[in-house]
Amino acid sequence: MAAIPGRLFGIGVGPGDPELLTLKALRLLRAAPVVAYPAPEQGDSFARSIVATWLENGQREIAIRIPIQPGLPPAAIYDAAAAELATELDRGNDVALLCQGDPFFYGSFIHLFARLAGRYRIEIVPGVPSITACAAAASTPLVTRDEALAVIPATISEAEIARRLGESDAAAIVKLGRHFPKIRRVLRELDLLDNALYIERATLPNQRVAPFSDVDTGHVPYFSMALIRRRGAIEVNE
Amino acid sequence: MAAIPGRLFGIGVGPGDPELLTLKALRLLRAAPVVAYPAPEQGDSFARSIVATWLENGQREIAIRIPIQPGLPPAAIYDAAAAELATELDRGNDVALLCQGDPFFYGSFIHLFARLAGRYRIEIVPGVPSITACAAAASTPLVTRDEALAVIPATISEAEIARRLGESDAAAIVKLGRHFPKIRRVLRELDLLDNALYIERATLPNQRVAPFSDVDTGHVPYFSMALIRRRGAIEVNE
Repeated sequence: MAAIPGRLFGIGVGPGDPELLTLKALRLLRAAPVVAYPAPEQGDSFARSIVATWLENGQREIAIRIPIQPGLPPAAIYDAAAAELATELDRGNDVALLCQGDPFFYGSFIHLFARLAGRYRIEIVPGVPSITACAAAASTPLVTRDEALAVIPATISEAEIARRLGESDAAAIVKLGRHFPKIRRVLRELDLLDNALYIERATLPNQRVAPFSDVDTGHVPYFSMALIRRRGAIEVNE
Repeated sequence: MAAIPGRLFGIGVGPGDPELLTLKALRLLRAAPVVAYPAPEQGDSFARSIVATWLENGQREIAIRIPIQPGLPPAAIYDAAAAELATELDRGNDVALLCQGDPFFYGSFIHLFARLAGRYRIEIVPGVPSITACAAAASTPLVTRDEALAVIPATISEAEIARRLGESDAAAIVKLGRHFPKIRRVLRELDLLDNALYIERATLPNQRVAPFSDVDTGHVPYFSMALIRRRGAIEVNE
């Protein structure tokens, strides 16, 4: 007789500080017989490192190895990972799939979700995303009152970034990395350079917060962000 | 001799499910001698209700009573609340100020932060914001790959909402409440009605998720949101 299929939990583990795990994430990841997480082709998984102290000896671990390269990884990577997770689910095992930040906010989880949704019971546990973590780290409000917020990936074209930024009250430009020089050009052209903060590795011990204009182009990791407020700081009388 | 001033912690307590509290939020709110939170003029505080089981008997509680009305509350409300918090801080007491969702994502906390920043040590503890909680509740990715996300308050003008929506890959319209009919008009005009989901009281026991077009205009609470994806569902081959 076939087992009742297991459930897949897409678990946001937050931006990096292990204490920014939610109580629900902690409960579910400790209870699952199988814990899966994205990892580079070689080396350690960032998502796993966030919860490392909570993992139990008896849990089976599945590293979903994703090559780091410009552009999207091949669909075959996700096809194979989805198949491996499906095998566990078909055995009746619940799987906790760890996602740095939030599962549905630019997560590679989304590619696995797209392949498994409808076939299995999937529950998403939201996590603290990078944008609110960066705002907290920088002690700067993300968005308030009647402001609209634009979240813009640095990967899109310069013209498109300029257009979106030009219309925003407040903006977060995510995935800076090698796109940093492009973003600096756009901010300078729009005269927004002095309204921009740079945040790197928010909530980790080596976190860095700096005026955007102070940052050296050569050393910008993928996990970095710019926060821009058109009106500058929040006023007391707002 | 004057006491060393206390620290103010702006603590995100998440969207409503008490289990979506972070470990850090829990540690800090239990350790603080004073716990403050926004509350309506009469009745209970939503932020307090989220953490009610964790509050200790000996903690002093300060309810910051904010009238519910269209438009902004008077600045005097925040001035008085900031003064009350400052009194505690001047006594050397740490204050845990609870914020539903995330403190820097449309939080009333921002008005108190603006009044106390620079005078006291303030630490922000980011929380799970409503946008990621609603995406999880609706089992729909918020934003992926090279998409930009627009977060739009329903309180702004119809023309401005239409303009921002018209240019968005993905959007969250927050603070629906009495603005619901206006948002429905805009979505219909842009032919986005079938791409919109409605989420109310995400992560609470009375959570509701529905196609936007199924929702009855007359019963829309402030804590509701529309999520819109221009491309519709995420495709497996993306």
